[in-house]
Amino acid sequence: MKQPTVILLLSCPDQKGIVASISNFIFKYNGNILSLDQYAVQPDNILFMRVEWDLDGFSISREDIEEVFRPLAERFTMKWSLHFSDHVHRMAIFASQHLHCFHDLLMRRQMGELNGDIVLAISNHLDLKPTAEQFNIPFKYYPITADTKELQEEKELLDLEERRVDLIVLARYMQILSPSLVHKYPHRIINIHHSFLPAFAGGSPYRQAYERGVKVIGATSHYVTDQLDEGPIIAQDVIKVSHKDSVEHMKMKGADIERVVLARAVRLHLERRILICRSKTIIFD
Amino acid sequence: MKQPTVILLLSCPDQKGIVASISNFIFKYNGNILSLDQYAVQPDNILFMRVEWDLDGFSISREDIEEVFRPLAERFTMKWSLHFSDHVHRMAIFASQHLHCFHDLLMRRQMGELNGDIVLAISNHLDLKPTAEQFNIPFKYYPITADTKELQEEKELLDLEERRVDLIVLARYMQILSPSLVHKYPHRIINIHHSFLPAFAGGSPYRQAYERGVKVIGATSHYVTDQLDEGPIIAQDVIKVSHKDSVEHMKMKGADIERVVLARAVRLHLERRILICRSKTIIFD
Amino acid sequence: MKQPTVILLLSCPDQKGIVASISNFIFKYNGNILSLDQYAVQPDNILFMRVEWDLDGFSISREDIEEVFRPLAERFTMKWSLHFSDHVHRMAIFASQHLHCFHDLLMRRQMGELNGDIVLAISNHLDLKPTAEQFNIPFKYYPITADTKELQEEKELLDLEERRVDLIVLARYMQILSPSLVHKYPHRIINIHHSFLPAFAGGSPYRQAYERGVKVIGATSHYVTDQLDEGPIIAQDVIKVSHKDSVEHMKMKGADIERVVLARAVRLHLERRILICRSKTIIFD
Amino acid sequence: MKQPTVILLLSCPDQKGIVASISNFIFKYNGNILSLDQYAVQPDNILFMRVEWDLDGFSISREDIEEVFRPLAERFTMKWSLHFSDHVHRMAIFASQHLHCFHDLLMRRQMGELNGDIVLAISNHLDLKPTAEQFNIPFKYYPITADTKELQEEKELLDLEERRVDLIVLARYMQILSPSLVHKYPHRIINIHHSFLPAFAGGSPYRQAYERGVKVIGATSHYVTDQLDEGPIIAQDVIKVSHKDSVEHMKMKGADIERVVLARAVRLHLERRILICRSKTIIFD
Repeated sequence: MKQPTVILLLSCPDQKGIVASISNFIFKYNGNILSLDQYAVQPDNILFMRVEWDLDGFSISREDIEEVFRPLAERFTMKWSLHFSDHVHRMAIFASQHLHCFHDLLMRRQMGELNGDIVLAISNHLDLKPTAEQFNIPFKYYPITADTKELQEEKELLDLEERRVDLIVLARYMQILSPSLVHKYPHRIINIHHSFLPAFAGGSPYRQAYERGVKVIGATSHYVTDQLDEGPIIAQDVIKVSHKDSVEHMKMKGADIERVVLARAVRLHLERRILICRSKTIIFD
Repeated sequence: MKQPTVILLLSCPDQKGIVASISNFIFKYNGNILSLDQYAVQPDNILFMRVEWDLDGFSISREDIEEVFRPLAERFTMKWSLHFSDHVHRMAIFASQHLHCFHDLLMRRQMGELNGDIVLAISNHLDLKPTAEQFNIPFKYYPITADTKELQEEKELLDLEERRVDLIVLARYMQILSPSLVHKYPHRIINIHHSFLPAFAGGSPYRQAYERGVKVIGATSHYVTDQLDEGPIIAQDVIKVSHKDSVEHMKMKGADIERVVLARAVRLHLERRILICRSKTIIFD
Repeated sequence: MKQPTVILLLSCPDQKGIVASISNFIFKYNGNILSLDQYAVQPDNILFMRVEWDLDGFSISREDIEEVFRPLAERFTMKWSLHFSDHVHRMAIFASQHLHCFHDLLMRRQMGELNGDIVLAISNHLDLKPTAEQFNIPFKYYPITADTKELQEEKELLDLEERRVDLIVLARYMQILSPSLVHKYPHRIINIHHSFLPAFAGGSPYRQAYERGVKVIGATSHYVTDQLDEGPIIAQDVIKVSHKDSVEHMKMKGADIERVVLARAVRLHLERRILICRSKTIIFD
Repeated sequence: MKQPTVILLLSCPDQKGIVASISNFIFKYNGNILSLDQYAVQPDNILFMRVEWDLDGFSISREDIEEVFRPLAERFTMKWSLHFSDHVHRMAIFASQHLHCFHDLLMRRQMGELNGDIVLAISNHLDLKPTAEQFNIPFKYYPITADTKELQEEKELLDLEERRVDLIVLARYMQILSPSLVHKYPHRIINIHHSFLPAFAGGSPYRQAYERGVKVIGATSHYVTDQLDEGPIIAQDVIKVSHKDSVEHMKMKGADIERVVLARAVRLHLERRILICRSKTIIFD
């Protein structure tokens, strides 16, 4: 299989010598750089960087890299994180009644496309239970009403913690998560919205697209924040429609791009290719 | 050259026998149908139709077709119009300082792509004058301020009438036309907006797209109505962008699709392929 | 549910009066035309037409339409066929070891997207058996060698006949069907080829695409004929790649469009939207 | 205006320490890295790199950088070249009778989109002469027959040399350049081919696309080599077509993507974003 790699993500005020310092650090400990991407956001002059190198042959042990790297990070006042490509992410999928995105993620995981495991499915409906069982995914049913929402989310949180979930994917989950839940998983909740945001935010984007008579419809995956449909956009795609497309047709056509856009966002996250710059993403792909 | 054709556009309450009646009418007078497109909008149950047949060999003369057809139209309470493919449209282009759309239309006309002539260029700036002269297009300069707008538009109207303009194209014209001018040319003013409407309506869509961090940008051409950026959409397209694209890059990338989308909308109009159903277009292409 | 409709597909030498005759026929028996598409192929001057009308309220019974229509068809020397939208197609899927297209079709059928049933899965490998069982599709395993091919195909034919299969879908089936089998299902076998044909026909298109350094890869679905990868093309799509994409990446990216392109071709076939003009398709969508 | 930058392009056998050495070199002389892209081609294990830094503040003068860098380059046995972003390329456009690509490049240069000047237009026809004059581009007319080809190309070479041309763009030039001319400008001749190569190489790709019944057509820009239509591909794009599109329609639709694809390839070349790995391009964009 693929050799494990080290992935360093960082941002810091841009200045001369950062690339040199980091590449020297890696070279000094006998590391082989596989990729190095950087981008300086203007006018803020903040540098964002992703660098990946082979763990094999690197002379610092996996456990010690953070400590050895820390002084360098502090010198440049970096925000940084260190990851290993052989980490197996533990995902939970939230879904409601739509099958296509949910099913698609299960299939990709089964085909080995995703660098992560799906350890939990949570739904406010029972429709997807048989599919979860088909794929041997534990399925939890938490119906939600205005009255029960707080309580149910507490139970969901317990489930997430118990199963050590580190990425939540909302695969057409038709409930708005409470801020308290969102805050527990900052930039670790990915949603798929069925329009090219910021057009047609909210509840029935295909209906709105139909009413407006647009000639393209789209899908947007983004991190979930407090602000509904306002989180940093990870991936988008569109497909052409015409006057012949009813709302039902749009839903069917849109489902095809929703699946691809959501899977793409999840893959980018799992491969640690996304950095956040305020309300936007920087994607080193 | 291409043989001239008759193009009939109509809409009416849908009922049995409409296609039969129209095709019988054409057959009775020895016409050869080249294309027939229809679409019934639901739930209104309004039928829209475009039918095109050879003028050559048709046994009613060009001048008399309307009169002979009228009883049939009245029977089905049609809204209808009759056109001939050899009519040469007379277009006026309004532009401000951006060259790309303006230039593109002049080039396409020179290459014979457009079934129409450009008989007038109007601008509130002088920047495009040399280009208009390069292509031998009469250029009128009407600088606009809040105070002069009404007066200048009156002059523009005189120009439009004098030159018998039947289609106005706003090729990145940075002024909002007054309702009085818009009402004179219903569904005969085509605008290009530099975003995928309804996202980023208004004045600086690329800046807004940049701030929001979208991964696709777009262009929209639409008929101009009283409501800014709300008219029926004719054509849209998009192009991918990334975090690397500055506002300037977006403008440059976007310019490529603005040109294509605007030219496409103009071509569809000139070929009589657009019907209007309330705030939406039906396009028989 | 949707009301059943009658779908008439035809081709004949183009001449005046065909549309009138057909629409009169439908009107005479109280039919309501839902859509009528036509296209005359030049320079052959062959007219292709698809017309669809409500069965409800049509005054000829389902069983008698063919007989009543025949004289009209003969007058214009039509090639024609009559279909009903409530016919449930019976599909067989042939696949080998790749899961993505096979799985995708099963999922779409489960979601009700396809106007047909999948009554049989045939494979020369055992890999997909669990998936077929997951979805309750009968799975037949016919391993193929040069020596056994003829015999195995005879068994497959018996299976196809026994289950009254009327559409065969090759969902990345890595065997070439014998002409004798192909001839039994003319224009009723749909294949997905993993390149934008005619580029990279044959066995390892992603490898070839990688070697050539193309910047887009594609997928093509087509009817199967005697000539490998030469049958009439039904649908194609492409996706961008870069120098960073290994053959493995291309396979993964390509899998996403293979699924969509194959599903689109199957849908068009099931909805009777495809006519054949020599080696090409005419698609009324 | 934009500050000038230094651009270093290199390839060499991959080994540890290359990024460190290069970034140290830049840092040592007080350079600020603006972008650094690298990619190691497998299984050859050849590293390709593009690094760009500000010339302002760099403590080695423009004239001396090569000499100071050489020892480092030799240590890693690099193939390398050094460029400055304020170099104004001197382009010659070869074209025949098609206006769209030729015109498009002249327009982009006029709008300031291209980091280069067009110093010469060469054609085997007189059709484009007025357009060249419109834009004040020197136009040379060299009609070509089998007998005169060698002689005419010699004259063209003299023109190219006299005007110190460093990039030749074939904007739908309908002659095949002789190997002797091609060899004088290795990877400095860009062609636009009007199909998605390798499909439909040769002389009439739209005709071939029409005959084959493809559902997408494309355009490919590539460097010209001895092998017709076989040079390294720089950019490709496609557009959808249907059975309704005649060869003439395809030409018109295709013209829109030809323009964009050619302009994109030229821009990538002018910005020094293309490296060559045998018969393929590596594009750091």
